[in-house]
Amino acid sequence: MKLATVSLLVALVVSAVAWQSPSTPTQAAAVAYPEGFRNWGHVKSAVIGPTHKSFAINGGFQHIYANSQGMIGYRTRAFPEGSVVVVEWLEMQDHGGAFVEGPRRQVDVMVKDSLRYAKSGGWGFQRFAKDSKTELAATPTPQQCFACHEKLKKDGLILSAYRQ
Amino acid sequence: MKLATVSLLVALVVSAVAWQSPSTPTQAAAVAYPEGFRNWGHVKSAVIGPTHKSFAINGGFQHIYANSQGMIGYRTRAFPEGSVVVVEWLEMQDHGGAFVEGPRRQVDVMVKDSLRYAKSGGWGFQRFAKDSKTELAATPTPQQCFACHEKLKKDGLILSAYRQ
Repeated sequence: MKLATVSLLVALVVSAVAWQSPSTPTQAAAVAYPEGFRNWGHVKSAVIGPTHKSFAINGGFQHIYANSQGMIGYRTRAFPEGSVVVVEWLEMQDHGGAFVEGPRRQVDVMVKDSLRYAKSGGWGFQRFAKDSKTELAATPTPQQCFACHEKLKKDGLILSAYRQ
Repeated sequence: MKLATVSLLVALVVSAVAWQSPSTPTQAAAVAYPEGFRNWGHVKSAVIGPTHKSFAINGGFQHIYANSQGMIGYRTRAFPEGSVVVVEWLEMQDHGGAFVEGPRRQVDVMVKDSLRYAKSGGWGFQRFAKDSKTELAATPTPQQCFACHEKLKKDGLILSAYRQ
């Protein structure tokens, strides 16, 4: 259980996508920044605490959000076309063992588009750096994102579950 | 800062309301269970970690949600009539320093209704036990909720802020 949980948390960081659209095989099929995602459904949260081995680079909150199609997917485990799932990473501040939200680390996005992302299980992946809507993180690449999600998947490429 | 943060977190637990409607002064003005609140806006989260002095009774996640009127309030700090704010308390599981959500402890509710709750700053308070929509927690009483919010307030009885 411990290993599975850590794997899942790590999987939120390391993943990838087949980065080319079938119709334009040499052109990147960019994943758009998820405008307004903080108004979407809140799926769940996790925290990498100060005693975790990856605290220095991953420490803090991970809030998972989904748009309306994505929330249908979380409830049924069949994610409709147009589903978007976001993991917002925030640093944390430790006040005597009470943890509060800090600055943003990054925003991870998954978009369900079976045609556009046919080579990566129908999902497009991207990580945006800090608060930027345009600057992409150097790593993980979309290909790395997909590789790890593909390896860890049980019932699809979305690794998190909704508490019913 | 440390003391202020801890005070705010503690304030989420201990509060109160003038429990009587002006029009029916001897009858309790019950606060309704906030149906569907997990589909509302997610304001922010905090965690009471294993090293916190109140971990045994308060440890875990606090997710704050607000309905559409409440989200207007968080953005403007003027909470319209009908605003509802919820704090969902969840226990946590610690997997090598990675914290994930556990069972629900309780659901705290604040409802803005200036007429009905005129004696408690226009807000009604209530705590629901565990997953129940009817069972109320023995403590804090609505009166205790209000007393602490009233004491700690800066710009209103809502103590939390939205990260813009």
